[in-house]
Amino acid sequence: MFLAEVIGTVVAPISVPELKGRTHLMVRPVTPEGKPTGKTKVAIDSIGAGVGDRVLVVDEGGSARQILGDPDAGIRTVILGFVDSVSIHGRTVFDHSS
Amino acid sequence: MFLAEVIGTVVAPISVPELKGRTHLMVRPVTPEGKPTGKTKVAIDSIGAGVGDRVLVVDEGGSARQILGDPDAGIRTVILGFVDSVSIHGRTVFDHSS
Amino acid sequence: MFLAEVIGTVVAPISVPELKGRTHLMVRPVTPEGKPTGKTKVAIDSIGAGVGDRVLVVDEGGSARQILGDPDAGIRTVILGFVDSVSIHGRTVFDHSS
Amino acid sequence: MFLAEVIGTVVAPISVPELKGRTHLMVRPVTPEGKPTGKTKVAIDSIGAGVGDRVLVVDEGGSARQILGDPDAGIRTVILGFVDSVSIHGRTVFDHSS
Amino acid sequence: MFLAEVIGTVVAPISVPELKGRTHLMVRPVTPEGKPTGKTKVAIDSIGAGVGDRVLVVDEGGSARQILGDPDAGIRTVILGFVDSVSIHGRTVFDHSS
Repeated sequence: MFLAEVIGTVVAPISVPELKGRTHLMVRPVTPEGKPTGKTKVAIDSIGAGVGDRVLVVDEGGSARQILGDPDAGIRTVILGFVDSVSIHGRTVFDHSS
Repeated sequence: MFLAEVIGTVVAPISVPELKGRTHLMVRPVTPEGKPTGKTKVAIDSIGAGVGDRVLVVDEGGSARQILGDPDAGIRTVILGFVDSVSIHGRTVFDHSS
Repeated sequence: MFLAEVIGTVVAPISVPELKGRTHLMVRPVTPEGKPTGKTKVAIDSIGAGVGDRVLVVDEGGSARQILGDPDAGIRTVILGFVDSVSIHGRTVFDHSS
Repeated sequence: MFLAEVIGTVVAPISVPELKGRTHLMVRPVTPEGKPTGKTKVAIDSIGAGVGDRVLVVDEGGSARQILGDPDAGIRTVILGFVDSVSIHGRTVFDHSS
Repeated sequence: MFLAEVIGTVVAPISVPELKGRTHLMVRPVTPEGKPTGKTKVAIDSIGAGVGDRVLVVDEGGSARQILGDPDAGIRTVILGFVDSVSIHGRTVFDHSS
């Protein structure tokens, strides 16, 4: 799992039943301090996140069975939750409320 | 999941039943703005995509059981859908209709 | 699996039942000798680890089904255990007790 | 999935029942045009491939349960099929018959 | 799957039942010729390997369910077998017996 910032939206109608109606967001991995690190990814929103939000993302390696019609398959990238704060060695390096 | 452009086709007869009759496309990961980023991959088409199309790809890490005859196995790289548009910080950086 | 040092904490309320009440820690992959290597990740604590601890981490590629409500899904990054010592070619390069 | 060239063989007796009798081949990922790209990997042959063959490889992230005795586990790297041809933007960049 | 050399041991008591009593080894990925390539990893030994051995390793992306108490989960990095020899384009580049 990694920290990311929501930087945009993707409109891509998907005919996979499990993905219908879900929002696709562009997320950019960030360091604890908020600096960009690594390539942007497309994530499924599960929490109502919006552009500018700091979020926790899981980029899982489940199979694509679902996409091809198998009910046991997974989805790769999902936004799990909003990040309230990040502390490194006791020092707060990100605080949503500030 | 990531954004990609379909750049070509691969003819590779596969004897795995689940893959028979499916088209293999070469996809190149791109940034939200459409610049190439990362290595090309071979993806299974599930939407009728063609060369030049901007698509959403899932590169999942499911097991290869299917390939070796186990009905529970997965396929790694699949084209999920066409990308209609991509917006970054409120600015449209890709629009299929334009 | 890889060696890592716990460097901080993340407060990110997650509504996924399996993740409720679990601590999210920032971990930094390290070489056997303890030098930072690779990007920091967010890991689920399963052992009561704290900042400064040397730990063993599994970064698995299970599917995100759990996150989206499927009971069979997994979580990607988990702290498995404390590292007592690391020996390379017979030489102790890390010893927790020293 | 990715394109690769078979560059060699590995003799490594494996006691995992599912792997017994299967050939292990060294594969080198290549670009559509055939240039080496990325690290070599050890792949399980499922098609009777030999050194010099251009092949399609899946490097899946299934679990190692099989290896440790669980019948539901997977194998990571498998050669899926021979590549007959690759076309990029309508131009043939690889043709097995030529 | 990849070739690796066992370079050391890790003592890290794990309370996961499936991992109890198993040895954790530090492995360093190597090229067919034996040159280091990529980061060291911690692997579960399943064959009685020791420091200096050339081995075949699978780094699978199974889920961490096992670690969190689900009996269906996997382990990420496992030593599958000893490597007897490696041949590249017909030339032996590694031979255990020599």
